[in-house]
Amino acid sequence: MKKYYLITPGPTPVPPTVAAQSALPVLHHRTHEFGKLFEQVMEGLRTVFQTKRDVMLITGSGTGAMESAVANLLSPGDKAIVASCGAFGNRWEKICVAFGAKVVMLKEEWGQAVDPGKVRQALKENPDAKAVFFTHTETSAGTVNDVKAIAAVVAETAAVSVVDAISGLAGQELRMDDWKLDVVVSGSQKGLMTAPGLAFAAVSEKGWKLVESSKNARFYNDYRLIKKSIPNKETPWTPAVSLVASLHEAIRALMEEGMENVWKRHLRLAKACRAGMQALNLKLLSAAPCSVLTSAHLPESVSGEKLVDWLRDEHGVSIAGGQEHLKGKIVRLAHMGYMDHFDLTIGLTALEWGLVKFGHKVDAGKAVKTAQETFLAG
Amino acid sequence: MKKYYLITPGPTPVPPTVAAQSALPVLHHRTHEFGKLFEQVMEGLRTVFQTKRDVMLITGSGTGAMESAVANLLSPGDKAIVASCGAFGNRWEKICVAFGAKVVMLKEEWGQAVDPGKVRQALKENPDAKAVFFTHTETSAGTVNDVKAIAAVVAETAAVSVVDAISGLAGQELRMDDWKLDVVVSGSQKGLMTAPGLAFAAVSEKGWKLVESSKNARFYNDYRLIKKSIPNKETPWTPAVSLVASLHEAIRALMEEGMENVWKRHLRLAKACRAGMQALNLKLLSAAPCSVLTSAHLPESVSGEKLVDWLRDEHGVSIAGGQEHLKGKIVRLAHMGYMDHFDLTIGLTALEWGLVKFGHKVDAGKAVKTAQETFLAG
Repeated sequence: MKKYYLITPGPTPVPPTVAAQSALPVLHHRTHEFGKLFEQVMEGLRTVFQTKRDVMLITGSGTGAMESAVANLLSPGDKAIVASCGAFGNRWEKICVAFGAKVVMLKEEWGQAVDPGKVRQALKENPDAKAVFFTHTETSAGTVNDVKAIAAVVAETAAVSVVDAISGLAGQELRMDDWKLDVVVSGSQKGLMTAPGLAFAAVSEKGWKLVESSKNARFYNDYRLIKKSIPNKETPWTPAVSLVASLHEAIRALMEEGMENVWKRHLRLAKACRAGMQALNLKLLSAAPCSVLTSAHLPESVSGEKLVDWLRDEHGVSIAGGQEHLKGKIVRLAHMGYMDHFDLTIGLTALEWGLVKFGHKVDAGKAVKTAQETFLAG
Repeated sequence: MKKYYLITPGPTPVPPTVAAQSALPVLHHRTHEFGKLFEQVMEGLRTVFQTKRDVMLITGSGTGAMESAVANLLSPGDKAIVASCGAFGNRWEKICVAFGAKVVMLKEEWGQAVDPGKVRQALKENPDAKAVFFTHTETSAGTVNDVKAIAAVVAETAAVSVVDAISGLAGQELRMDDWKLDVVVSGSQKGLMTAPGLAFAAVSEKGWKLVESSKNARFYNDYRLIKKSIPNKETPWTPAVSLVASLHEAIRALMEEGMENVWKRHLRLAKACRAGMQALNLKLLSAAPCSVLTSAHLPESVSGEKLVDWLRDEHGVSIAGGQEHLKGKIVRLAHMGYMDHFDLTIGLTALEWGLVKFGHKVDAGKAVKTAQETFLAG
């Protein structure tokens, strides 16, 4: 007997009631029944994004939504600023380059947040920049960016702000309209508690001006086509209807809880996780830790790759290791979406077990004890 | 009480055993468990496509796979021939234009198949054409193209053949390697009996040369990235894992049946459907009817839009009407994927009912009787 535990930053566990919707008979996407589901999903997504704008639904991975933002906003040769503090910020650069943009790259060390002052400076030096791309919660490092401050800096210029909120949406506070964000993209498989395969994009009025003038090639994810079909309660192409049915149930649950409570719930778990990992004498990687994932340095003697593999293969517990230059050097525990205090307990227990297995001394139970104390203190 | 019946050309019904897989706990996409599923899906898809090449898995709609072919094969300014006999053939033109290609358009009337001779002539007149795009089964009209003959014509030239087999794959005979097809794209929600959200593309050696030299912008569906990840039993981005789990079960069932039997099963249904519709004095639209859908003209006095809406809203039966200039003028009954003789019986019974409702005289039961006789005759 082996039970499986998903403590990773996406895909994340899906509530049984949400998963069950995907097993019901497939609805045709041009029926009143589907239209009703779709309309309610659209309405819920506006609350999740904290926007009055339409949220466009894409069948694809989160990276597809990121690409769609670049394809719809820029034209070949346009200048773009990418402000990155990890692997997912760097992905913006790769996509912009693939679409022929000239990229001004601002890179922070992994574990540091993007500095809004540097964004301001870059915009001053590059007044022709069309857009500033950055990340909400950078899960490669466990960092939350000051999205509000960055967006405010961009809002003073002619450029648009574009944020990848794939891992952060419905986990960490984000207010598209109040914070004057121009484009927010996300995916279904994190805070939205649905299986992967759906992605989203919302665009401000300022953003739409770029969409209308963009000369990049686009068809499948042409925002103009997607937006036009929303009043008809449909998508231009056959969407992943079974995932939309799941999402509908997930959004119902989120609406019942309320976004403020959702954000608070994640923050409380994050605080407990940080305390638990620190109790094992692991140093947190991020100076600005996010609410959806906690990352910490491993002792030099411990191979993170071996630890992650062993927990996954021997014990059925999937936690995340480090990426790129941090491969093998850090561990990352996710606490996003359908993960609660008991999942965190499993993650921390597994981490202790892994550390012991690979020769690092720990006081057995100390991580869980500390997390429990922190959690109960509120 | 209202039961729902899906007699439409996608999404199509999903077998309960296939749907159930999507409700199981989400697998992480970088685990041995998922890798094993993925490997078996890849192997099965090679049999479905009748190819030794890798079949690339995309999270997206079928249209996303069509776009991926254009984006990966062409460069802006390239010449492309599109041979169309309906709405889906025309979609190739729209995508090619969106990606900056110069399109030589060959259009047949809806109901006529593409003429391989005209393709040969167009290639002669346009020796600089990089690719010929066409459709396997054109469900807007119910036509099957002579894919083998078209591909043979293209194979004699420097151009590559690109076929949209979204609705035809695993329904109507298609042999990628034997027929020298260069690029085949498809989707999960038709013959593959899975919910929509996955799409596929396979590319010949000749096709890969174009992929390597293409200058179109692409990232999310960059074939080079997807292909490189296959030996690692994964996709570059988080795939729709729950749909892959479903697809795995659907492919298992197809492998058990064997592709020859799958094609025969569809043809037998098609013959029964054609006979049933003709028994109602409806004239078939297509001169080259396909195995996966049958379309017929409606009597002029009957509004196809009203008939389709009434059957869907009053009786829960989704059948398809006409598109574009045939809107309201034809009906289309699908018999693809997880649809059997009894589904056909429902479709024909509903059609009779609708015709009676809108004032067309029919001998009640005649369509079903005739379909039954034809079916039982083998």
